[in-house]
Amino acid sequence: MTRQSLPEEVVLCEVGPRDGLQNEKSILSARQKIELIERVAEAGAKVIEIGSFVHPKAVPAMADTDEVARGILRREGVEYRALVMNRRGLERALAAGVTKAKLTVSASPTHSAQNSKRAPGEVVAGFEECAAFAQSNGIVLSGAISTAFGYYAEGHIGLELVTPLVDAYIALGVTEISMSDSTGFANPKQVFGYMTELSGKYPKVVWTLHAHNTKGMAMANIYAALTAGVTRFDSSLAGIGGCPFAPGASGNIATEDVVFMMEEMGIRTGFSLGQILEAAESVERMIGHEGDSSMLKLRRGKAAEKSACTSPASAG
Amino acid sequence: MTRQSLPEEVVLCEVGPRDGLQNEKSILSARQKIELIERVAEAGAKVIEIGSFVHPKAVPAMADTDEVARGILRREGVEYRALVMNRRGLERALAAGVTKAKLTVSASPTHSAQNSKRAPGEVVAGFEECAAFAQSNGIVLSGAISTAFGYYAEGHIGLELVTPLVDAYIALGVTEISMSDSTGFANPKQVFGYMTELSGKYPKVVWTLHAHNTKGMAMANIYAALTAGVTRFDSSLAGIGGCPFAPGASGNIATEDVVFMMEEMGIRTGFSLGQILEAAESVERMIGHEGDSSMLKLRRGKAAEKSACTSPASAG
Repeated sequence: MTRQSLPEEVVLCEVGPRDGLQNEKSILSARQKIELIERVAEAGAKVIEIGSFVHPKAVPAMADTDEVARGILRREGVEYRALVMNRRGLERALAAGVTKAKLTVSASPTHSAQNSKRAPGEVVAGFEECAAFAQSNGIVLSGAISTAFGYYAEGHIGLELVTPLVDAYIALGVTEISMSDSTGFANPKQVFGYMTELSGKYPKVVWTLHAHNTKGMAMANIYAALTAGVTRFDSSLAGIGGCPFAPGASGNIATEDVVFMMEEMGIRTGFSLGQILEAAESVERMIGHEGDSSMLKLRRGKAAEKSACTSPASAG
Repeated sequence: MTRQSLPEEVVLCEVGPRDGLQNEKSILSARQKIELIERVAEAGAKVIEIGSFVHPKAVPAMADTDEVARGILRREGVEYRALVMNRRGLERALAAGVTKAKLTVSASPTHSAQNSKRAPGEVVAGFEECAAFAQSNGIVLSGAISTAFGYYAEGHIGLELVTPLVDAYIALGVTEISMSDSTGFANPKQVFGYMTELSGKYPKVVWTLHAHNTKGMAMANIYAALTAGVTRFDSSLAGIGGCPFAPGASGNIATEDVVFMMEEMGIRTGFSLGQILEAAESVERMIGHEGDSSMLKLRRGKAAEKSACTSPASAG
């Protein structure tokens, strides 16, 4: 069979405890979050975004990230990271024993103005203080570029708005960068093009794709990124969170869906599909409603499986 | 930007009136079906599967395909096709003025036995009578291979089970073949591999991919097929039908989702997105429940769009 150049293994970064839960109406307790983080680590996650050290008024659901960070069992070989916005956040991370922190800047000038009242360039310039603090305190920084493929105000975001932010991150010593399709604007052609161009231009950067399924294209975008050499992907247990504009609209892609697709293609994830499905089900129980996960939907429908689709003309 | 070899235009075959509606609990009237077919043609569909000429007891929802075929306005440049299983079906098609008919055989021996009590090879051998009748009556035949990528009993289906069926179709004079992932087993690596190999081996065959979204991979599979040179795809208005094992589990990929992805990649579909969304909404009204469509979910949530996702740490 003709083969494409696909990696042998990938790293899935679990963002459910942060990007997932912060958008939920019901706020979970620190104990529940710790249970989730334990479950996902047990299922095989190698990178887990456990929360964010931002002002509690800005994101109430993340106010207890310090407690969560202190409460989790640190497993060998698992990276526990948190989102930070400034030096104050890094100080909290350090105090809670979190040594990996993620900064974020928006590529969309409009989104940046809405979120931080500053231009993207000003936001990254403000990270200099963070970089200095991180370096002298043994914290490793990664950087996210949100709305990296598009935003409502601008439509598609050109690479010319992205590369200055990559340059700025590199100047700060950040070499692990996540391209975030925060509002689901990316299409697979764009993802393939951007990731091919970026990895060619910045061969030392370790790239992550943070794909959102708002327009149903997350899995196609992940596959396109894979063929462009990307080996790190953010995903969220049960597909929770990630700017769901309305009930039923989709945000983050479900971890279990990505695990399944990768394993079906013979690409190792390190996850146990059974365990991650159970972890995803437990997240749904905790938040009290269904997430957005093809694998969980299928699991719920398993019992009915054999009763359908065997009439003569039903084979589509 | 680095480019992949993608086609400039694609043909989407609307299977909602057949593969969609045959799996619905509520059976639409011929008049409703005609309205749907008109709407989808108006929205830009160039190929529409209007129903099937099979025994009414086997698929009651398709019993009135004759009436539907006679009632639709035949538009210039639009192909109206129907599924048939045997010569009797072709006779009905001819009488109703349908000059394009689709045969189908399952690549899975188990599925074939369940559906037709015969082996796949016996099923295609039985099509000889159809081919003779079609040729002498001006009916053009296309052929579908269902469960072409996998089935529950066998797991993944190897190409060695597929190519004899392709050979048999070609021997019958059928050169338009649809590879159907009837139960959502395909992954993009497999689709890319199979479609690359098949189009290399059978350069004169016009290939269609019929992707199901059961495991969330339909859009990724469609994109993978595109990069392998496939330019024809089956899809269903609002994502209705296509072996949904349980409410919420996914079958056919939504036409409007495919239209959107293609147009975003600069690939012409001939569809008006606005009109196809309206047609999809009208399908949901007729069947009385939501289908499975990212674009419709997003449309329903549009009003809430601007109220969310602008808190400092929410940009994922």
